[in-house]
Amino acid sequence: MPDADRTDSLSIAVIGGDGIGPEVVAEGLKVLDAIGGSGGPKVSTTDYDLGAQRWHRTGETLPEGVVDELRQHDAILLGAIGDPSVPSGVLERGILLPLRFALDHYVNLRPAKLYPGVASPLAVDRVAPNGIDFVVVREGTEGPYVGNGGALRVGTPAEIATEVSVNTRYGVERVVRDAFARAQARPRKHLTLVHKHNVLTHAGHLWRRTVEEVGAEFPDVETAYQHVDAATIFLATDPGRFDVIVTDNLFGDIITDLAAAIAGGIGLAASGNINPDRTTPSMFEPVHGSAPDIAGQGKADPTATILSVGMLLAHLGHDAEASRVEAAVAADLAERGDTTRTTAQVGDATASRL
Amino acid sequence: MPDADRTDSLSIAVIGGDGIGPEVVAEGLKVLDAIGGSGGPKVSTTDYDLGAQRWHRTGETLPEGVVDELRQHDAILLGAIGDPSVPSGVLERGILLPLRFALDHYVNLRPAKLYPGVASPLAVDRVAPNGIDFVVVREGTEGPYVGNGGALRVGTPAEIATEVSVNTRYGVERVVRDAFARAQARPRKHLTLVHKHNVLTHAGHLWRRTVEEVGAEFPDVETAYQHVDAATIFLATDPGRFDVIVTDNLFGDIITDLAAAIAGGIGLAASGNINPDRTTPSMFEPVHGSAPDIAGQGKADPTATILSVGMLLAHLGHDAEASRVEAAVAADLAERGDTTRTTAQVGDATASRL
Ligand SMILES: CC(C)[C@H](C(=O)O)[C@@H](O)C(=O)O
Ligand SMILES: CC(C)[C@H](C(=O)O)[C@@H](O)C(=O)O
Repeated sequence: MPDADRTDSLSIAVIGGDGIGPEVVAEGLKVLDAIGGSGGPKVSTTDYDLGAQRWHRTGETLPEGVVDELRQHDAILLGAIGDPSVPSGVLERGILLPLRFALDHYVNLRPAKLYPGVASPLAVDRVAPNGIDFVVVREGTEGPYVGNGGALRVGTPAEIATEVSVNTRYGVERVVRDAFARAQARPRKHLTLVHKHNVLTHAGHLWRRTVEEVGAEFPDVETAYQHVDAATIFLATDPGRFDVIVTDNLFGDIITDLAAAIAGGIGLAASGNINPDRTTPSMFEPVHGSAPDIAGQGKADPTATILSVGMLLAHLGHDAEASRVEAAVAADLAERGDTTRTTAQVGDATASRL
Repeated sequence: MPDADRTDSLSIAVIGGDGIGPEVVAEGLKVLDAIGGSGGPKVSTTDYDLGAQRWHRTGETLPEGVVDELRQHDAILLGAIGDPSVPSGVLERGILLPLRFALDHYVNLRPAKLYPGVASPLAVDRVAPNGIDFVVVREGTEGPYVGNGGALRVGTPAEIATEVSVNTRYGVERVVRDAFARAQARPRKHLTLVHKHNVLTHAGHLWRRTVEEVGAEFPDVETAYQHVDAATIFLATDPGRFDVIVTDNLFGDIITDLAAAIAGGIGLAASGNINPDRTTPSMFEPVHGSAPDIAGQGKADPTATILSVGMLLAHLGHDAEASRVEAAVAADLAERGDTTRTTAQVGDATASRL
């Protein structure tokens, strides 16, 4: 269990997972070591074997007891979970989502920043002349992710399948308050709520009212609203308008992939599954998946994982070290050009800057 | 009620609606007239006054009887519905969605094509060297749009709000079959299912199984699957991979706005709310909204409405006329450059090419 104060030794639980997960995590750990070797906190790690292989071997996803052990750490670093040999949903709903729910990671934090030297699929000169630099606060424990769906008469012409999105004032208020605090700490102090309240009226009005009410505590933060469909347009045509976005679990899933794409690709997108109350360890992971097609070839870009390590350090109060990691990544990206490097080469180059 | 065979006189119900709706619809009708004046079907129109003004005046959204009258027409042309003076959801869930549901518009058809001369926010040379030309078949009568949400203890700290996505084999199968038929009629014969079956497992597996099973009837159509989050990445980084996309109501709402953005903007995006069984009139409308900020200024681009008129003609069997409308729009777009023209000037220029 992490302490609210920063400590000079960190115990990190490491879940490499599937596909490229272990490869990119190895580079993230290199960077953590380099931080420790240059005045930062010393890190001890414990590996947890979770993912497709364990499931095939034992039928287990997240065994009883593992969550209890994870709770003893200051933070968790996760690579990726998922493999085509496992039926869809089994690992996602057996490991990844249960971890987020069990550890009450209600803030899923996903920055989108276009670093110098990185190519965006957008015509940036035209549509983002002032750059891209925003962060999405995605709710992590409610919405359509709660697993409250069901099905009747499966496989017959009369089949009906439902999915239920659950939204509580308790759940919405805490993530909205966190988003306001993050907006307040940034120079622009701007928060956009993304939802679809003209169709999903019950959930939408709960979100809207909550933003209005919590906003009264943050009079210096300006707020805006976008329907999720319109938000995708602005992400493509004017991403510079966004500073902090707060949104529900599913909308957040969708727009953070788009945000990653416009900010140079999923290979660079970091994320934190955060419990701001610090009653449990937070979990940091690249937004990308396990990419089984390139696993084991040393081709995966570990940058997203390294940036996730930076977020881990920031969450644990090591802001100076977090800034050093981000600066090292930024310097590496600026010089990267068209060179093709291996996973380890990117990790080594970044670590050597620290 | 439209006949399956094309007729040489068309009776069209016209709903101008709110904001820029009436302005853009006027240009669409100009184009329909020009078609009629140059060998195409003769059109008679009936105006229906629905939208914010009527709601303010009478409290009515979609009065009893209007739907019955609409049913007597061959098709419906709609501008836009929505105004900030009306509480969110009232008009959407009082007019637009009830029309789609009452008239069983289960295929919401949204082409995305980047015409020569049109600027995309994407760096097209790099990410779409072979152009953008796909069509989204969005389910129109199910999913999270059914209005089956609810809320308890509203306004208290214990508030809970739910939204239910309803998916039936009946509803999924018919839209999937339509999408396969559309894919089969296109040169590439490729269909992508977009969903999120690793999280929304019940609905997702229904969609997946249905695509597999209906696919057996279309052995020459190649299929692919993308999670909705990944689909937004590919829409930004490699839109040329898509030919036909089939997806649920909410995912379709989101990705068609993004599709419109990358194909040159919402000012060009046409749509059809289609009942392929032709038991009811289909409804054609621009994807954009009522844009109250520019209403009444003659600034709105009527191109999306004009292209929607083209889709209306195609749906009613007038393929040659539909192609003429699209060609006129394409020619206008190619020559448009940076000139600023009024709504009427664009309509006149397009009509005069017919
Ligand atoms: C793998 C999947 C369950 C997960 C999600 O939907 O949250 C992923 O897409 C993500 O964004 O972290
Ligand atoms: C206005 C709204 C209800 C509508 C929808 O969500 O379907 C619109 O966004 C659209 O895409 O036609």
